[in-house]
Amino acid sequence: STSIYNQNDPWTPTVAFTDFINNETITNEKYGGKVPYHRRPVTGKEYMDINALIQRELKKAPSFLAACCESDGTDLAILTTAPRGFKSGDRTTWFVLFHNMAGTGYYLSPVGLEVLVEHKDLHVSNWQLHKVFYNGRYFATTGDLEQEFVAGTLEVVKLKQPQADAVLGSMKLRSPPDSPGPLHFEAQGPRYRVRDNHITFQGWSIAFGMNPNSGPRLFDIRYRGERIVYELSLQEALALYGSNCPGGMSTRYLDGSFGIGRFAYELVRGLDCPYTATYVDRHYLAESDAPKTNQNSLCIFEHDSALPLRRHFSDSQSFYYGGLRKNTLVIRTISTLINYDYIWDFMFHGSGAVEVRVHATGYISTSFLHRRGTDYGNRVGPHTLGTMHLHHMHYKVDLDVDGQLNSLETQDMEYELIKDPWSMQNTIERPYLRRKSLEREDEAAFPLDAPMPRYLSFASPNPNKWGHPRSYRIQTVSFAGKHLPTSSSMERSVSWGRYQLAVTRRKEEEPTSTSIYNQNDPWTPTVAFADFINNETITSEDLVAWISVGFLHVPHAEDVPNTVTVGNGVGFFLRPYNYFDEDPSVDSPDSVYFSSE
Amino acid sequence: STSIYNQNDPWTPTVAFTDFINNETITNEKYGGKVPYHRRPVTGKEYMDINALIQRELKKAPSFLAACCESDGTDLAILTTAPRGFKSGDRTTWFVLFHNMAGTGYYLSPVGLEVLVEHKDLHVSNWQLHKVFYNGRYFATTGDLEQEFVAGTLEVVKLKQPQADAVLGSMKLRSPPDSPGPLHFEAQGPRYRVRDNHITFQGWSIAFGMNPNSGPRLFDIRYRGERIVYELSLQEALALYGSNCPGGMSTRYLDGSFGIGRFAYELVRGLDCPYTATYVDRHYLAESDAPKTNQNSLCIFEHDSALPLRRHFSDSQSFYYGGLRKNTLVIRTISTLINYDYIWDFMFHGSGAVEVRVHATGYISTSFLHRRGTDYGNRVGPHTLGTMHLHHMHYKVDLDVDGQLNSLETQDMEYELIKDPWSMQNTIERPYLRRKSLEREDEAAFPLDAPMPRYLSFASPNPNKWGHPRSYRIQTVSFAGKHLPTSSSMERSVSWGRYQLAVTRRKEEEPTSTSIYNQNDPWTPTVAFADFINNETITSEDLVAWISVGFLHVPHAEDVPNTVTVGNGVGFFLRPYNYFDEDPSVDSPDSVYFSSE
Ligand SMILES: [Ca+2]
Ligand SMILES: [Ca+2]
Ligand SMILES: [Ca+2]
Ligand SMILES: [Ca+2]
Ligand SMILES: [Cu+2]
Ligand SMILES: [Cu+2]
Repeated sequence: STSIYNQNDPWTPTVAFTDFINNETITNEKYGGKVPYHRRPVTGKEYMDINALIQRELKKAPSFLAACCESDGTDLAILTTAPRGFKSGDRTTWFVLFHNMAGTGYYLSPVGLEVLVEHKDLHVSNWQLHKVFYNGRYFATTGDLEQEFVAGTLEVVKLKQPQADAVLGSMKLRSPPDSPGPLHFEAQGPRYRVRDNHITFQGWSIAFGMNPNSGPRLFDIRYRGERIVYELSLQEALALYGSNCPGGMSTRYLDGSFGIGRFAYELVRGLDCPYTATYVDRHYLAESDAPKTNQNSLCIFEHDSALPLRRHFSDSQSFYYGGLRKNTLVIRTISTLINYDYIWDFMFHGSGAVEVRVHATGYISTSFLHRRGTDYGNRVGPHTLGTMHLHHMHYKVDLDVDGQLNSLETQDMEYELIKDPWSMQNTIERPYLRRKSLEREDEAAFPLDAPMPRYLSFASPNPNKWGHPRSYRIQTVSFAGKHLPTSSSMERSVSWGRYQLAVTRRKEEEPTSTSIYNQNDPWTPTVAFADFINNETITSEDLVAWISVGFLHVPHAEDVPNTVTVGNGVGFFLRPYNYFDEDPSVDSPDSVYFSSE
Repeated sequence: STSIYNQNDPWTPTVAFTDFINNETITNEKYGGKVPYHRRPVTGKEYMDINALIQRELKKAPSFLAACCESDGTDLAILTTAPRGFKSGDRTTWFVLFHNMAGTGYYLSPVGLEVLVEHKDLHVSNWQLHKVFYNGRYFATTGDLEQEFVAGTLEVVKLKQPQADAVLGSMKLRSPPDSPGPLHFEAQGPRYRVRDNHITFQGWSIAFGMNPNSGPRLFDIRYRGERIVYELSLQEALALYGSNCPGGMSTRYLDGSFGIGRFAYELVRGLDCPYTATYVDRHYLAESDAPKTNQNSLCIFEHDSALPLRRHFSDSQSFYYGGLRKNTLVIRTISTLINYDYIWDFMFHGSGAVEVRVHATGYISTSFLHRRGTDYGNRVGPHTLGTMHLHHMHYKVDLDVDGQLNSLETQDMEYELIKDPWSMQNTIERPYLRRKSLEREDEAAFPLDAPMPRYLSFASPNPNKWGHPRSYRIQTVSFAGKHLPTSSSMERSVSWGRYQLAVTRRKEEEPTSTSIYNQNDPWTPTVAFADFINNETITSEDLVAWISVGFLHVPHAEDVPNTVTVGNGVGFFLRPYNYFDEDPSVDSPDSVYFSSE
């Protein structure tokens, strides 16, 4: 506990959270100056120092710990929360304590104890435990807690040490394996090619990569030689909680600061991706001078979705059938951010469409259930409150549709009441199309909870064969919750969440919608996305779409042991809209056609 | 043309559109009396009689037809529209004429000619052609059209006879086949069982059937022996068009009247469903005394979705991995309604969730492009306007959650601004859960375009282990357009479309939300769903959820030859919500778990 954090040493301990190619010069360029040291992410070393402090403090409440938890403290796991205070410069974090249990998620077994640690000072010896929370009450020190317990004035909920097989959330097998279900096989091997970080498949060409912080990113997505997307990248994943425990109610994780890419671990063959998938390693630099490798942490495969991409059967006028299977190229990586697992999918269809999807799974985060806890979620165990939260994710999609100069077009329907042209005494409510071109960024920023035009597309100035602007349409699938009120002192740090979709002029100096430094100083955000939207014109410009998707998650009994992916997937499509002269899938060698002729 | 339609003969020609078990007695019981004869669906025989009339009339415009279409009329195909007039009793239908072409969809090749036929009289000899439309102008007769053409006062768009391989929308192969993509195989055969109309799979038990009119329907859906759904059935599919041609602008197809079930044809093995699927025949009675069979028209298979149902990887505190593949039982049937193909899927997950999904594919319907046609869609061919339309579908879901007596509960989030309990000078915006019980039908009818509570579930009075009502949640995925204004004289016939979700008390006398008779007399609907919603109490009652899903479809170049399924799927989930005490998939024999211990 004599560690000293050195703000003048660029390599210790923060550097690693930035990019492989990052260095101080780039940091200066990116943020227009030195980033204050207090904004740095918390490193593994810092967590170890904090854990040591907490362990020392727990020693001061031995009889309480024995009574509440059958514990001496050493077998309790701590879970960090974030942000860490109320104003810039603060570094005071609630840690929630759980019964630890090898081989299963401790996240479901809170013991009711939470501690507030100030770890701002550069000298670890000056760090302090500031507050203690237990079962609805706050104390100044663990000593006070012990004193009240000994005096008999503390209401203690006595928990047994969890037992290996009965523990809430265990995934140990309960039945012998069944015969295997259907499996994919590729009779003649894969039909896609992977060379270094480049994939080709049936007209598609994609460069893939992984940012250790912000996670998966694709570049130069081309179809039939033409670039459609310059950059398609995850920016941020926010998890914002409600609870009546201090740790839970403080929690607004910005996962990019923890490292969505670096925590994308090895994928399990046959479960996380098909056996036949191609697995590639990802390398990153974090908290060390030496690069690290996550082996087989990204997979690529062709998937038979068991659905036609298109089909028509005719027995009127003439008998024929035409169709094509929906075989999709999938690029996947899965990030485990402490308790949660996000499955990041990027899919490429034979129709020229790109589909982006994220599913949430893994362990929920919980609070110790006390008093009106169920105002913030559902009880999912004897003393466990599954705490409600938002999962909101942000993507950058730098579409370049038939060149860099694009405009934004919307289309929607209305009804017009007209006299019937052939029978003027009668009227009909007729749908018609309202086409609109959005001229400025402010018009193109759609609030999270407001209706959107049903069709919205990036349009090129060039027409297709039929005279319509060559376009790609953006279609989102999302069940988002409510964005944090803008009156919140930290709202600007997640102000990308205000918009389900915003389209801005592309700027070199606006490469990302957030920063790894936003988590620990959300009150003075290093990057505030809302500032990108300053009503610049967006006609015939290089444009970027910023897309938010997410869902409100109220955990329920069936989130134990893990949240299931069914119904918990959100994302978006990029679909050709008069980009081609006809559906490109007609050229597919997989097409099927037969007729009675 | 001496046919006489006999309204006193219950078997000719309408009977067939009702159920297998249907007869006059049941009809009386179902609709509280005899259904007026003018409401009957149009039979194949009636279309043939109409076609003969149109062919006779076309003979009166030989030089016009030769000029416009290189045709003598006999090689033109007619496409019906519906409804057929403006008031009850009308039976006057616009037919749109297309260049016919064996082996491909003529729907993309309108020649600009449309004719209005009155076919109300019971004597075919009294039927008449009422109006003729060509390229933006209306004429009283085909003779008038010919006369104007001969006089040189008609603006004619000269179209060539379509050529076999160059025709718009041809699906003939353009490339030699590639190596096959990934295929499913079942090493030890299927893991589900089908006996008669009954399926079992990993705790699921489902009875399936097909109504020749309204299409697929499931009964008595059970999981682990407990009934969850008594009936899950498609009710209707509406396609409502805009156009500046009379046929197009009149079109509001109610597909149930045409026959969603009877037009579910044989499925193509390996494309419509996997090779390994189980295919079953469906039988129906329509327009004949003898039953007919659609062979292999429903398929059942287990699908490897190539996604984990759940997974968690841990390398913090201890190293372990738990997961399960998302293998889904799928029941599928595909209806071809003239030009369009709807893929109806019902999916059963290892988490106890049911997923219902419909994808649209097949040929779009089109109008001849003239004047401001693109106010109603996009040009997709030399003279072809892909006309905008809604696809709205309606489902009945008679959930019985832990018994018949259910209530409707909603949950949603709000933020509350509170003082921080441990630091009272600071405030925090905290999410909390707003739980509500809906007491009456009017509160439980959610307009199509209004926000819905984020969580909505059918709740039993009985708690799960943790004290929460055992419930199933309804979650919809839809991109619906705008519902027809209620001021429309036919709106009550599709008044189910007002609501994205409505929950009513179950009534024997409210078995369906529509009727096959609504199409041809929408002005006096035989069933008007809106009447079901009469503010009855819905607490602890046998309840039914009625769910609308759909999307606005603005056809674009890539809808040729066929609409693709990517992005054109909508549906809903029924998800356990505190129904169990934990996720039932933990018991799955397919579960995987390993740890470093
Ligand atoms: Ca800007
Ligand atoms: Ca761009
Ligand atoms: Ca009622
Ligand atoms: Ca019921
Ligand atoms: Cu969650
Ligand atoms: Cu459509």
